[in-house]
Amino acid sequence: MKSDTAIIDPLNIRLRRSPFWESAHNAGCNTYHVYNRMLIANTTKEDYQHLKSFVQLWDVGCERQVEIKGPDALRLVQASTPRDLQNMKNDQCFYIPTVDGDGNMTNDPVLIKIAENCYWVSVADADLILFYKGVAAALNLNVSIEEPEVSPLGIQGPKADELACRVWGEQVMDIKFYKHARVNVNGTPMLLARSGFGLQGGYELYYEGSSGAEMIWDQLMEAGRDLGVRAACPNQSERIEAGLLAYRVDVTTDMTPFEAGLGHLCEMNRDVGCLGWASLGKKQDPTRQIRPIEIFGDTLPRMRGYWDVTNTQGDKVGRISSSCRAWAYDCNAAIGLIDRAHWNPGTKLVVEAPHGPREAAIKPRFWGRQ
Amino acid sequence: MKSDTAIIDPLNIRLRRSPFWESAHNAGCNTYHVYNRMLIANTTKEDYQHLKSFVQLWDVGCERQVEIKGPDALRLVQASTPRDLQNMKNDQCFYIPTVDGDGNMTNDPVLIKIAENCYWVSVADADLILFYKGVAAALNLNVSIEEPEVSPLGIQGPKADELACRVWGEQVMDIKFYKHARVNVNGTPMLLARSGFGLQGGYELYYEGSSGAEMIWDQLMEAGRDLGVRAACPNQSERIEAGLLAYRVDVTTDMTPFEAGLGHLCEMNRDVGCLGWASLGKKQDPTRQIRPIEIFGDTLPRMRGYWDVTNTQGDKVGRISSSCRAWAYDCNAAIGLIDRAHWNPGTKLVVEAPHGPREAAIKPRFWGRQ
Repeated sequence: MKSDTAIIDPLNIRLRRSPFWESAHNAGCNTYHVYNRMLIANTTKEDYQHLKSFVQLWDVGCERQVEIKGPDALRLVQASTPRDLQNMKNDQCFYIPTVDGDGNMTNDPVLIKIAENCYWVSVADADLILFYKGVAAALNLNVSIEEPEVSPLGIQGPKADELACRVWGEQVMDIKFYKHARVNVNGTPMLLARSGFGLQGGYELYYEGSSGAEMIWDQLMEAGRDLGVRAACPNQSERIEAGLLAYRVDVTTDMTPFEAGLGHLCEMNRDVGCLGWASLGKKQDPTRQIRPIEIFGDTLPRMRGYWDVTNTQGDKVGRISSSCRAWAYDCNAAIGLIDRAHWNPGTKLVVEAPHGPREAAIKPRFWGRQ
Repeated sequence: MKSDTAIIDPLNIRLRRSPFWESAHNAGCNTYHVYNRMLIANTTKEDYQHLKSFVQLWDVGCERQVEIKGPDALRLVQASTPRDLQNMKNDQCFYIPTVDGDGNMTNDPVLIKIAENCYWVSVADADLILFYKGVAAALNLNVSIEEPEVSPLGIQGPKADELACRVWGEQVMDIKFYKHARVNVNGTPMLLARSGFGLQGGYELYYEGSSGAEMIWDQLMEAGRDLGVRAACPNQSERIEAGLLAYRVDVTTDMTPFEAGLGHLCEMNRDVGCLGWASLGKKQDPTRQIRPIEIFGDTLPRMRGYWDVTNTQGDKVGRISSSCRAWAYDCNAAIGLIDRAHWNPGTKLVVEAPHGPREAAIKPRFWGRQ
């Protein structure tokens, strides 16, 4: 495969860029991949070490919102997920597995309740909006479904609190984990949530509109100069060691939430209105599941496809979907989908890595997790 | 915008490649864009001239199929489109506008009827599968909905018939426009349709499976050597002058089929079962519509975003979504969305092109069309 000689046109009209794109690009983000038809920057090793000590701005405009609004909004969102949304508060964010009628995962978005009868579904890489449009049309629901001009900006790392306080005042400290409040951005109240695709803590600002983004970017950069703020992106190593799943990579369209290790988010005692609930009921006891895996030895090459996992007799028992050097732990951390007979912590396995087989073992939990 | 300095990683695990990718890449396709999370090659000027005289192989594996199968298959497909599918034959392909409950376009796929109760929807750049999954789950339909491992290969240009005859025999001449038959590919019967994203005529082979594709590729290349066969891709200039629409470029998610100039494909006299039918009924008389436009002067730069169209007084009256040098006609051909007051053939307009305004005019029809 000579695909490393392929050149992808960054200016193709199909590729969108967030309003933070130019600022992030000028600040040093220059290699990308494509997510929801938008550019998102690639991780560097330096960013990983920096993220664990300082604060970073992440252009995650590729986390597109689906706005669902109207009297049937809750019914429609609930139709897509087995997580119980009944008691969700107007200032809450929920990580939700979404499923189709067979109980297979269609996405793993963060759901944000904006107000009564108004939600944003902050989607991973898929046109989940089309699932909502299909259900709404079929059931003739009273809702509007749109992709608003909203571009999330991550403010992530241990100094994120300090930076956010400087820009928006001490009030941001009152925002609890996975809750949100409005802050003043260029004169407009915008949604700030305590959330992010990492374990280091921080915020996501849901920037509204297509212009003026460079003003708040510059303000954050200026205010955070002595905090070591820098432009970066969701960190692959940090998210893999923490076991944060990537949709279409770790979680695929043929997997249930139970296989993805998200069974604790599924209300299976009663039917909350999820269209996949009956199917999920039959799939609560999976024969394969996501597991944390340590792959022994020195640093592995970047993954370009799944790696087979075998038992010590050479039979295939799973796959590695994400792998990284967990620099803070001086090992290779990986996310795998492993058959039941081999998923217990301590089980010895073999990973068919690019330069030959590597010994590996199931870990009791992801790195940095209790 | 310094986005021409952005580099997109062609090896990112999210980017898929068709089984023809390596053959096409080795044959000279080396710059790409991303479509349905797959690589698709970019057009060259040389390809345009070649296409009009010879025959080309196009790796259009990015045209993904949604397979809809089961007793409710027709009902589900019909729910997505206002085109009447009742009398579709088992060997037919239909170009269909698909719409949401508001009558706005969700895609413009080619629908292929494979057998009774079995369809492939060959989708443009969107996860239309999620619309079908939403409708099926909401109405509890008896269907399976999957993305099969099928990768279309275009065999396009005036020598396509000759090439197909050499490889599969004279029987291919019996395949009428937008019909299909099975041909032997590496020992397996596979679907060959007389179709393609261009005006030059030819075939699309729906290759099934992930391996062995290089064998039929090589066979076609070998058999077509003296016909001047070469690897290429859907040709931007040829499709723009012919008025073939690109979803997400010319046709956007806020447009109805009437605005896209596809009203003739909509059955509005009776409700055939399209979920957007009632909404479409109110939108049959659009105030803007797709039009062929000639932009005067010499060759324009490649489009990197829409160009505003104004009347001669400077008021915005539309947008150009696609523009190319129509080399065979020695002019700039364009596709625009134009307000009703200005859409009549001959109307003089101004296009806000990158290096300054250009005079333009509405044409009576696209180039090469009767």
